[in-house]
Amino acid sequence: MSTIGEYIASHAEMLEAALIQSLPPQWNVPVSLRESMNYSLMAGGKRLRPILVLAAAEALGGSQAAALPAALAIEMVHTYSLVHDDLPAMDNDDYRRGKLTNHKVYGEAMAILAGDALLTHAFYSITQCHKVHGIPAERVLSITEELAAYAGARGMVGGQAADMLGEQGLTKLEELEYIHLHKTSDLIVFSLRAGAHIAGATTAQLAALTDFGNAIGLAFQIQDDILDIIGDEKKLGKPVKSDEKQQKVTYPYFIGLEASELKVKELTEQAKKALLQGGFANPERLLQLADYLMQRDH
Amino acid sequence: MSTIGEYIASHAEMLEAALIQSLPPQWNVPVSLRESMNYSLMAGGKRLRPILVLAAAEALGGSQAAALPAALAIEMVHTYSLVHDDLPAMDNDDYRRGKLTNHKVYGEAMAILAGDALLTHAFYSITQCHKVHGIPAERVLSITEELAAYAGARGMVGGQAADMLGEQGLTKLEELEYIHLHKTSDLIVFSLRAGAHIAGATTAQLAALTDFGNAIGLAFQIQDDILDIIGDEKKLGKPVKSDEKQQKVTYPYFIGLEASELKVKELTEQAKKALLQGGFANPERLLQLADYLMQRDH
Repeated sequence: MSTIGEYIASHAEMLEAALIQSLPPQWNVPVSLRESMNYSLMAGGKRLRPILVLAAAEALGGSQAAALPAALAIEMVHTYSLVHDDLPAMDNDDYRRGKLTNHKVYGEAMAILAGDALLTHAFYSITQCHKVHGIPAERVLSITEELAAYAGARGMVGGQAADMLGEQGLTKLEELEYIHLHKTSDLIVFSLRAGAHIAGATTAQLAALTDFGNAIGLAFQIQDDILDIIGDEKKLGKPVKSDEKQQKVTYPYFIGLEASELKVKELTEQAKKALLQGGFANPERLLQLADYLMQRDH
Repeated sequence: MSTIGEYIASHAEMLEAALIQSLPPQWNVPVSLRESMNYSLMAGGKRLRPILVLAAAEALGGSQAAALPAALAIEMVHTYSLVHDDLPAMDNDDYRRGKLTNHKVYGEAMAILAGDALLTHAFYSITQCHKVHGIPAERVLSITEELAAYAGARGMVGGQAADMLGEQGLTKLEELEYIHLHKTSDLIVFSLRAGAHIAGATTAQLAALTDFGNAIGLAFQIQDDILDIIGDEKKLGKPVKSDEKQQKVTYPYFIGLEASELKVKELTEQAKKALLQGGFANPERLLQLADYLMQRDH
């Protein structure tokens, strides 16, 4: 069995080859809109969310090929959220992962439109699980509904709105956890459930993956808060302590660095325990991914 | 039979009552995000696109109630496109239909997020045609795929990008027609096809509605260009000749006002002829809507 690092690298490579083709080449799309969309789709990242889709399908013994359009969809949604998040009216970031942000290259108007088009195209991509791969329409419609719920007003966008509204200062850990839950965990939970739906998961399996995803999502975000304080600029591709400079309240702010590190470990164990309740055929990669996220300093 | 004006008014009233409920009240959504979404959803307009969904379902003898979630979806997509279009980085409009634009009330960041959430929620709404009304998943998935295609990079967003890129000056009528086709006709064609899918339309009926929609969409947009030159400020709710002030190229610019008026008439006749090829049980309201759009100066 390959290491989890190799698993991630080979899947990321395959995903990137598919992403660059995901807006059909024969479609009549204004050239600079297509370029702007592809620029951000190909701007790097570990591709963790789409890998979770594929690993969840695999955990149930399902087809990774049939899950691929849903995996591409979640990367499109993640990418659009970064493009809009970086806009001057939002976080006003010039760089992401060491590259100029979309609006610095294509202008604000095109960045807004490219984000809109990426979000819209994610829903197109999901339908191809049925159209191209023959996954039953009923299951694919459940994935569609869940993407809209987890990425929308009560999900990711809600988390971003709460984050923005909270920038004047959060006073409770619960408020921060609401933001983390929706800004980060929701897309992770969606990714796992999407892969599971492709493979025809039971309700109990979906529930196990939801618990798993909520726990690793929060661990992931606390780890991000920690790295933001102790991390190395090059490893993250953005200035360290940018959150602190903006006086942004993070997890360690509330409970300290050491307790935060402990919390990441606890959540990871909790996640793995929840996963093992699901009775999956091949849970190994998901278990390894949980550990990988916790050790993420590479 | 009620007049088409009464038909539109009573359906608009019903649609507005449904729109205000469309983001489930029990969902945990940040208050100002919900307010921002609802502000623009309730900012008026004739609700022509959702009425086309309902009228198309009716033309096939289908259920308007089952088509309602798809009708709400297209109004959400239309609304999000206006919210993003009005942003300072785009058209920079302070007013729409006599009311302050979303970003003037809630700020730019919230307007971006509200638009994103409305677009996302449109896809949620469509799934409810199956979940709540029992329309077969296969049909509802076709509607999902078509919304993503007609509203995305090769559809409405593509048209907006082309419009923005063409602001330095279009030199050919074909370029302007590309913009009109995608900025305007695509959502109209989608609306008609969505209603038809709900009612289980044949391929020939979908094709007839597509021809009908493309013709009335272009007529609608040329009429808009004409009204922008000869119209009355109060009737449109925005300053007349705003396009001309921005030196924007319109249909009358290429072929003159009189020829443009003739073109609107021709397209309307062409549309009605195309529709009558579809063998619909009840095409009356769609025929009346085509005429209504042409006479739209009220």
